[in-house]
Amino acid sequence: MYPELLAHIKRYVKLTAAEEQLLCEKIEVKKVKKRDFILEPGKHCVGNYFVVKGLMRQYLVNTKLNEQIFQFGLENWWIADQDSLMTGQPSSCYIQAIEDSELLLLNEKNRVALIEQFPALETYFRMMMQKAFVAAQRRIGFIFNQSDEERYRHFSKLFPEFMQRVPQYMLASYLGFTPQFLSRLRAKKI
Amino acid sequence: MYPELLAHIKRYVKLTAAEEQLLCEKIEVKKVKKRDFILEPGKHCVGNYFVVKGLMRQYLVNTKLNEQIFQFGLENWWIADQDSLMTGQPSSCYIQAIEDSELLLLNEKNRVALIEQFPALETYFRMMMQKAFVAAQRRIGFIFNQSDEERYRHFSKLFPEFMQRVPQYMLASYLGFTPQFLSRLRAKKI
Repeated sequence: MYPELLAHIKRYVKLTAAEEQLLCEKIEVKKVKKRDFILEPGKHCVGNYFVVKGLMRQYLVNTKLNEQIFQFGLENWWIADQDSLMTGQPSSCYIQAIEDSELLLLNEKNRVALIEQFPALETYFRMMMQKAFVAAQRRIGFIFNQSDEERYRHFSKLFPEFMQRVPQYMLASYLGFTPQFLSRLRAKKI
Repeated sequence: MYPELLAHIKRYVKLTAAEEQLLCEKIEVKKVKKRDFILEPGKHCVGNYFVVKGLMRQYLVNTKLNEQIFQFGLENWWIADQDSLMTGQPSSCYIQAIEDSELLLLNEKNRVALIEQFPALETYFRMMMQKAFVAAQRRIGFIFNQSDEERYRHFSKLFPEFMQRVPQYMLASYLGFTPQFLSRLRAKKI
C-alpha cells in the first residue's frame, strides 16, 4: 500500500478499501538517483508520476540552447508530460531528478482501465488538471504584472523552504531571469 | 438539443442517446450582447459556458489598473473561472462578451450530478482541463523564449482569422505588450 498517495487522493474523493487495493495493484515504484531522467525528448511519456520523496524538474532546451524549467515536482505532486499523454506524440521535454527521489508511476493504460471500475479516480485527475491549469494561469498573470524583482519576492514568500532546496540557476530558469540577475537580487538580501 | 456541444463532446468520448438527452436537459441557453458581463469580481462563477457563437474574454484589472486578458473564448471553447469553481470562492475576474454571443451554461451543481449517471462526461472535462493546462504551459514557454515580435508573428500564424476579429488593444493585452508596440509592429506590415 502507498499511504502518501492514498492520503492525497482522499483529500479530494472517497475511496473504498477495494478501490484502494485495485489502485495499488496498478502502481509501479520507481526509485531514481539525482540527475536520472524519467523522460527525454523523442520518448513517449508513459503515465503520471506521484512524488513520494524527492524533487523533480521538467524542462525544455529552447532555441537559444538554454534550459527552460516549466515545472517542478515535489512531495505530493504529480509530474508528467501532459502534452505527450494527451496527443500520444513523443515528448519534447526532459523530466529529471534534482534529488534522489521515490516516485509512484500510474501508467496511462492502467489509469484508463482503472477509471472504468473506479470513476471517482477520473474526478480526482480532473481536479489535479484543474489545479495545474489555475496555477499556470496565475503564473502567466504574475509574469505580465510583476517585475522580475516582485516575482522573486512573491515566490520567496509563497515557498520559503523550496527556495532553500533548489539550485539557484534552476530557480532563475523557472522564474525566467538570468542567474546573474538572481545573484544580484540575493546580494541585496531581499 | 444542442448539436454543436454534442458534436464537440463526441470528438472525445462516446455518448448514448439517453446521455445526450440527460445532458441537454441540464443546459441553460444564455444569449448575451456585446459588452455584457457573465462574471464580475466578487461574484461566484456558477459553471462552465460553452461558446456556440460569438467571442468572450476573461480578464483581470491588475494593480496598475490595466486590463489583463488571460483567456479568450470562441466557438467550441469552454470558458469559466476555474479558480472560483475549484475553490468555491468569489471570482477576481471579469468574463465579458466581445461580440453578441450565444452560450450554453452547464451549472456546476448540474455537472456534478450528471457525472454520477454519466462518468464519461468527467473524462471529457478532464481532457478539457488537460488541453487548457497544456496550452497555458506552452504559452509560458512562448513568453520566456520568444521576443514580443516573435510572439506576435507566431500568434498571427496560428490564428489568422481570430487576429482580424479581436480589437487591437485586447490582442496587445493578451500578448502582454502595449497597444503602441502593437501599432508599431503592424505598421511594419509583418
